[in-house]
Amino acid sequence: MGSSDRQERVRARELGLPLGRYRPGPHNAITDVEGVLVGHATIVRGSGRLVPGRGPVRTGVTAILPAGGGVFDERVVGGGFVLNGAGELSGLTQLMEWGLIETPILLTNTLSVGAVSDAVVNWLVERHPGIGAEHDVLIPLVGECDDSWLNDVAGRHVRQEHVFEALRSAKGGPVAEGNVGGGTGMITCDLKGGIGTASRKLPEKQGGYTLGVLVMSNFGRLADLRVAGLPIGEHLARKLRGMAVRRSLYGSIIAVVATDAPLQTHQISRLCKRVALGIGRVGSYAAHGSGEIVIGFSTANRVPRRSRKMVYRIKVLLDTRMDPLYQAVMECTEEAILNALCMATGMEGANGNFSPALPLDEVRDYAALLRKPILRPTPRDEE
Amino acid sequence: MGSSDRQERVRARELGLPLGRYRPGPHNAITDVEGVLVGHATIVRGSGRLVPGRGPVRTGVTAILPAGGGVFDERVVGGGFVLNGAGELSGLTQLMEWGLIETPILLTNTLSVGAVSDAVVNWLVERHPGIGAEHDVLIPLVGECDDSWLNDVAGRHVRQEHVFEALRSAKGGPVAEGNVGGGTGMITCDLKGGIGTASRKLPEKQGGYTLGVLVMSNFGRLADLRVAGLPIGEHLARKLRGMAVRRSLYGSIIAVVATDAPLQTHQISRLCKRVALGIGRVGSYAAHGSGEIVIGFSTANRVPRRSRKMVYRIKVLLDTRMDPLYQAVMECTEEAILNALCMATGMEGANGNFSPALPLDEVRDYAALLRKPILRPTPRDEE
Amino acid sequence: MGSSDRQERVRARELGLPLGRYRPGPHNAITDVEGVLVGHATIVRGSGRLVPGRGPVRTGVTAILPAGGGVFDERVVGGGFVLNGAGELSGLTQLMEWGLIETPILLTNTLSVGAVSDAVVNWLVERHPGIGAEHDVLIPLVGECDDSWLNDVAGRHVRQEHVFEALRSAKGGPVAEGNVGGGTGMITCDLKGGIGTASRKLPEKQGGYTLGVLVMSNFGRLADLRVAGLPIGEHLARKLRGMAVRRSLYGSIIAVVATDAPLQTHQISRLCKRVALGIGRVGSYAAHGSGEIVIGFSTANRVPRRSRKMVYRIKVLLDTRMDPLYQAVMECTEEAILNALCMATGMEGANGNFSPALPLDEVRDYAALLRKPILRPTPRDEE
Amino acid sequence: MGSSDRQERVRARELGLPLGRYRPGPHNAITDVEGVLVGHATIVRGSGRLVPGRGPVRTGVTAILPAGGGVFDERVVGGGFVLNGAGELSGLTQLMEWGLIETPILLTNTLSVGAVSDAVVNWLVERHPGIGAEHDVLIPLVGECDDSWLNDVAGRHVRQEHVFEALRSAKGGPVAEGNVGGGTGMITCDLKGGIGTASRKLPEKQGGYTLGVLVMSNFGRLADLRVAGLPIGEHLARKLRGMAVRRSLYGSIIAVVATDAPLQTHQISRLCKRVALGIGRVGSYAAHGSGEIVIGFSTANRVPRRSRKMVYRIKVLLDTRMDPLYQAVMECTEEAILNALCMATGMEGANGNFSPALPLDEVRDYAALLRKPILRPTPRDEE
Repeated sequence: MGSSDRQERVRARELGLPLGRYRPGPHNAITDVEGVLVGHATIVRGSGRLVPGRGPVRTGVTAILPAGGGVFDERVVGGGFVLNGAGELSGLTQLMEWGLIETPILLTNTLSVGAVSDAVVNWLVERHPGIGAEHDVLIPLVGECDDSWLNDVAGRHVRQEHVFEALRSAKGGPVAEGNVGGGTGMITCDLKGGIGTASRKLPEKQGGYTLGVLVMSNFGRLADLRVAGLPIGEHLARKLRGMAVRRSLYGSIIAVVATDAPLQTHQISRLCKRVALGIGRVGSYAAHGSGEIVIGFSTANRVPRRSRKMVYRIKVLLDTRMDPLYQAVMECTEEAILNALCMATGMEGANGNFSPALPLDEVRDYAALLRKPILRPTPRDEE
Repeated sequence: MGSSDRQERVRARELGLPLGRYRPGPHNAITDVEGVLVGHATIVRGSGRLVPGRGPVRTGVTAILPAGGGVFDERVVGGGFVLNGAGELSGLTQLMEWGLIETPILLTNTLSVGAVSDAVVNWLVERHPGIGAEHDVLIPLVGECDDSWLNDVAGRHVRQEHVFEALRSAKGGPVAEGNVGGGTGMITCDLKGGIGTASRKLPEKQGGYTLGVLVMSNFGRLADLRVAGLPIGEHLARKLRGMAVRRSLYGSIIAVVATDAPLQTHQISRLCKRVALGIGRVGSYAAHGSGEIVIGFSTANRVPRRSRKMVYRIKVLLDTRMDPLYQAVMECTEEAILNALCMATGMEGANGNFSPALPLDEVRDYAALLRKPILRPTPRDEE
Repeated sequence: MGSSDRQERVRARELGLPLGRYRPGPHNAITDVEGVLVGHATIVRGSGRLVPGRGPVRTGVTAILPAGGGVFDERVVGGGFVLNGAGELSGLTQLMEWGLIETPILLTNTLSVGAVSDAVVNWLVERHPGIGAEHDVLIPLVGECDDSWLNDVAGRHVRQEHVFEALRSAKGGPVAEGNVGGGTGMITCDLKGGIGTASRKLPEKQGGYTLGVLVMSNFGRLADLRVAGLPIGEHLARKLRGMAVRRSLYGSIIAVVATDAPLQTHQISRLCKRVALGIGRVGSYAAHGSGEIVIGFSTANRVPRRSRKMVYRIKVLLDTRMDPLYQAVMECTEEAILNALCMATGMEGANGNFSPALPLDEVRDYAALLRKPILRPTPRDEE
Repeated sequence: MGSSDRQERVRARELGLPLGRYRPGPHNAITDVEGVLVGHATIVRGSGRLVPGRGPVRTGVTAILPAGGGVFDERVVGGGFVLNGAGELSGLTQLMEWGLIETPILLTNTLSVGAVSDAVVNWLVERHPGIGAEHDVLIPLVGECDDSWLNDVAGRHVRQEHVFEALRSAKGGPVAEGNVGGGTGMITCDLKGGIGTASRKLPEKQGGYTLGVLVMSNFGRLADLRVAGLPIGEHLARKLRGMAVRRSLYGSIIAVVATDAPLQTHQISRLCKRVALGIGRVGSYAAHGSGEIVIGFSTANRVPRRSRKMVYRIKVLLDTRMDPLYQAVMECTEEAILNALCMATGMEGANGNFSPALPLDEVRDYAALLRKPILRPTPRDEE
C-alpha cells in the first residue's frame, strides 16, 4: 500500500462512490450550515522512539463554533446520543439536561481533555468577564479519541496556545480534513483517519434545510469497513495482513451534527441516534472500548442567556417531517467518515508506528462495480 | 414482480449472499440457544374490502419462551434498547429496571397488545395459581408492529385462544419464517416481511457461545434496502414504481436476542444496541413513526423468584471479550431481517392491498457480484 | 384505630398541616388546569375468602383526559420520569420518544392493564373511525398498581364497561379521592390509600400558571411516613403493631402532572423528576418492588395530528423560570398523597384482609406541633 | 446569627436529631467502608475585592480513593444517577457504560475540572507508566460545584500540587467536614456548607453491610431546608432576611456512595437514585441551575484490568434484599448534608461576601420538639 500513501488525496465523492440521494451543500461540509465555523491546530513534532513528555507528537485540537462567536450569550438548542460511552465528551451531562449549547465544541486526544477544557474556560472568561460573577460558570464541550498509537498521549502536548489557535482560526467555507486538528493522530479501520465532514441540503419541498456532520474518526477494524455499502474491508484486510498496523479496538468516534432546521432538543437527540446508525453502516460495531458519542445542534432558534421575558417563541419542525433529515444525516455521516479516510495521508508516529492511507485506486475499482446503472441512486429531488 | 411471488422461497443464505464471518448454529435460528422455544399462531381470514371488526384478517401471535416453560420461577437476565420508541413493548420498563425476564415474550399487532397481555396473564395465572396471592403480580412482555395495510387491525382479531396456541406450540428446532405468527401481515421495505431469525456460534477460543436473533420486521422503504451491504433497493424500487405497495413509514421492528453467554443486564443492553446497528445496515433510518425496539436475554444465569439466600453467584463474561458477540449479533440481525424478506410470499389483504415478495432471482444476481473472490469474507475461525 | 375508620374524612389541608407556600387552585385538584377532566369507575363486590375469578372485588379504573375529549386530534406535549421501573405504564415508551400525549390516561390494577388498554383502543376507534386506516394506530397510556391484598387481582374484573364508564363520566371540578376508581383497593404506608390530587396556582409575577398532580398511591411502609415533614409514621407504626395490615413493599405509585405552563417535553420530564422528590418526602424510598412512575403534560401548546404546515410555533417557558414550578409540583405531590390517605376510609377485602384508615385525630395533634409560629410557612406571594 | 459563627461546631448527630433507624459505622463516614480513603487540599488566601486571577481564594480539592490506591488495576463496580444534569462529573459517561470505576474520584470547583482532570492523569501516568502505551488511556472522575460567591472561580487557583496533596493525604478513619477540600467555598441552603459524610452498618440479618455517603454540598434555599423532616428553614429564613447571603440557585451537589454490599452496576445506579430522594428530603427541589449528580461503587467485587480468563464470578445481592440499603442510603444522605452544614463555620470571601453558619442552638431547640417520645425512631435492629 506504500504507493497509495504518496498519491494525491481526494474526497470520497470524487471517487465516483454512490453516497446517497440528497445533494451536498456548497462545501459539502458542516460549515454549510450558516454560522458554523471550524478551526484546527495541528501539532506534529519529532519521530522515533516514544519518550513520554518528549514525543513524538501527532495530535491537535479542532474547534467548532456553533453560531459564530456568539454562542455564550445566545445559546443554540442541542442534544446528543451515546452509542458507546467508552469515551468522554465533557459537558455532555449539562447538554442533555438543558438541551442547550453555550460553548464552542472542542475535539482532542483523551488525555488532553482537562487541559483543553481549562483553556476554553480561560478563552471564554477573557471574552465574557462576568463569568463566575454576574454570569454563571460554564462547562465546555470537549470530546476525545485516543491517538496513542502514533502520539505521545501521556505527554499531553496540547497547550492553551493550541486551543486558542483553533478557536481563533475557526472560519466558514471549506474544512481541512484528514490529519488535521484533533484528527491528526487518529486511525479508522486500521487506516489513517482523522477529521472528515459532509453536508446535505434538502429540497425546498422538504424544507430546504441544510445539515452537516463533522467527525473525528478513530474507530473500527479494516475487515469490517463498508464503503458505500460494499464490504471491501475484507479484501483490503487481506492485503494489509503483513503490516504492523494498529489493530486495537480502543478507538472512538466523536460526531457533531449541525442543522438550520428548527428542532427541539429531543428532536436533535433523535437525529443524533441516526448518526449512530450511519457510523454502523461504515463498519462500526461500537466495540467495547470504542467511545462513540454524537452531539448536535440547531441554529434556527436562539435562547438568550439573560432575558426579561418569561416566555419565548420557537419554531418547531413537525415530527412527521423529520424523516428526510434522518436520511440525510445518515448519508452525511457515512460520507464524513469516508472523507476522513480519503483525505488522510499515511503517517509515521511514535516508535515508528506507521498507519497507512486508504488506497484510493482500489476504492475507485470498487466504485466502478457500484456504477452499474441498476445501482445508481436517483437524486432525491428528481423523484 | 408477479412471477417472484409464485416461486419457491428460500432463506437468505441459500442465495449465496455473504452474511458475515461467524458460522450459524444448527438451525440458524434463535432456538439454537438451548432452551429457547418459539411458537406461532397465524390468522388469515377473508378478503376484499375492509370492514372493521369483520376483516380481512392477516395477523397473528408469535411466542418466544426464553428458557422452556420455567421462566416464571427461574428468571433469566435481560436487557434492551429502544432505537426508536414509536412503538410499544409492554413490560419493557420493568425489564430495564430489574434486568430480569420472567414471562414469555409475545409479538403481535399494535391494537392487540392489550388482549395478548391479558391472555398471557391468564395463561400464567393458570400455571402459577399463587400469582396475586403469595406470588407477586407480573407484567408480560408484549411487542407490536402495525399490520394495518393488510390486516383489519382495528378489529382486534387476536383472541386468547391464539395466544394459548402460540404458547402451547412453542418448540425448539427450525422456526417458521415469513408470513407466520405476529409477522403474518407485516411488510419490510415495501415488500412482504414478517418473522425472521438467524444465529451464530462463536469459535471455542472466543467462548463457543451461541447467540440468536428473531425479528418481527415491518419497517423501511424499498429504496433504502441494502442486501449484504449492496444498495439494491434503489434498483428494485424503480421496478416497483408502478405498484400500489404500502409506502407508509409507520412500520416498526421488534427484535429479540438470546444467548448462552454469561452476561449481566447492562451487557445485554449493550448487545441490544448493536442489534440496532444491524437494523440500520439493512436500510432502516428509524423513521419517525417506526417503533424499533430490541430486547435480549442470557440463559447462562438464572435468578430464582424465591430464595432463602441473600447472595448468589453469577458468571460474567469479561467486557473485553464482548466484541465477538457484538459482531455476531449484527450479522444475525442482518440475516434475520433478510430471512423474513426471503421467506415471506406476496400477500393480498385488506381492500385488496397487495404486498409483493422480494424477487429472489434479482437478489441472486446481485449476490453474484459479491461472490467475486476479493469480496468473499474469511470465516472467522480460519483467521 | 378502629374509631378512626368511622370518622368523617377530610382533605389534608383541613387538618391544619403546613403544605407549602403556593396557593392551591379553586378545587385543589388536577382539574384546576383548564381542560383536564377526571372520571372514575369503582368496583366493589363480595367479601370473605378469595376465590380467583369470583372475588372479593376491590378495584376500578380512573381516567384522566388531558384536554377535554380532543387529545387524539390535538395532541398535548408530554414527558415522564421513572423513579422505579418495577411497574408498568403502557405507552410510556412512545410518550418518551415523541414527547406527545394522544390518548386519555387510565389507571387500574396490574393485571387489568391489558383489558383496559384494549377497551381504550375500542373507545377511540369508535370515535375516530380512521384509526388503523387513514390514521395511524395508537398506544394507550395505562398505568397500574397492585391491589392484590384487598382485591381478586387475578380475576381481572375490570371490563370494557368500566373503562367506558370512567371515560364517559370524566369531568372538571372537584375530584373524588380515596377509595375510588383505580385507587379503590390501593394501600399507602400500610394504611388505606388510593386516589389523591392537589394543585397550585403560581403568583402572576411567576407567570400565574396552574399545576396539578393526581396520584394513584399504593406505596410505602408506615414507619417511613412523613406528614408535612414530621416523621409521625414511627409513632403510628407502634400503634399498628398488632394489626394484620399489608406490609408487603410490592406497592407502587403512579403520578400524573398537568400544567398550563408552556413547557417542552424535556422540561416536563424534568418536572416529573421533582414529583419523584415529592414522593420521597412523604416516605417513599422507592422500594425494590414498588413501581414509581410519573408522567406529565402541558396544555399550553397543541400539536395537530395532521397538518399541511411543516413548521409550527410554540411558546416556551424560559428554563430559568422553572423553579417555581419545581417547588409547586413537590408541594402538590406531597399533598395529593396525603389527600389519598386522608380521604380513604378503612376497607375490608379479600380473605377478610383489612386496611385501616389514617387516624386523622392523631395527625391533627401533630399538625398542632407544626403550627407554632416559627414553623408556619409564609405564603409565596407575600414574600 | 453572628454568634453562631463563633460557636463550636459539632456533627448533626450530637444535636439530638432523629437521623434514622440504622446505626452508623465507627466513624460515621464513607471511610467506614473498608478500603475507602479520603483526602483534602484546602486553599484559602486573600480577602476583599474580587480580582480574577488574584483572589480571594476559597476553594480546594477532595479526593476519594475507592479501594486504596489500587483502583486502576483492580476496578470496582460502579454506577450513578443524574438528578439534575446542570453540572459536570467528567468520566460519568464511561462509568455509566462500563459500570466500572478505575480512577480516584475528585471534587472541586466548576472551572477547575479541566486542571484537576489533567493533574489526575499525570498522577496516574506516573504510577502506571504503561498508560497510553500497553495500557489504555483513562478518563478521571472529577465532579464540580460552583463556589463563585466566595471564591475567585475564574482565577482557577487549583493547581496540580493541590490535587497531588489531596491524593497523597487520603486516608481512612475520621473525615474532615465543612470548609475543607472541594467544599471550602460551598454554600448550602444559603448557609455555609461544604463536605459532609455519614455511614450506616446494616444488622447482620440484613447482611451486615456497610454503606457510606460523602457529599460536596452547595445547593438550595434556606426557606426549603428540612432538618430531620422538620421544616425549620422557613423560620431561619425570616431571621436571615436582612443579610446579604448568596441566594442564587446555581448551586449543586455531588454525592458519592460506597458500600461493601455485592452489587452489580445497575443495582448501584438504583441505589444512587435513592440518594437523590435523600437530597430531596433535606430541601432540594433540584433547582434548574443546580447540578445534582450521584455516583457510587461497591468494593465487594473487583474486576481486573487484565485477565487471561474469559469469565469471572461475582457475588450478587438478591434484588429483593436491596430495601435496607435503600433506606440506609437515604439516611446517610440526609445526615451527610446536615453534617456539612453543622461542621462548616461562617466564611467571608470574595468582595467581602459572607456566608453564615447554621445556628446550632436553634437546631437543638427544634431537635427537642422531635425528641418527644412519640416521634423517637426505633433502632432498626430492635424491631
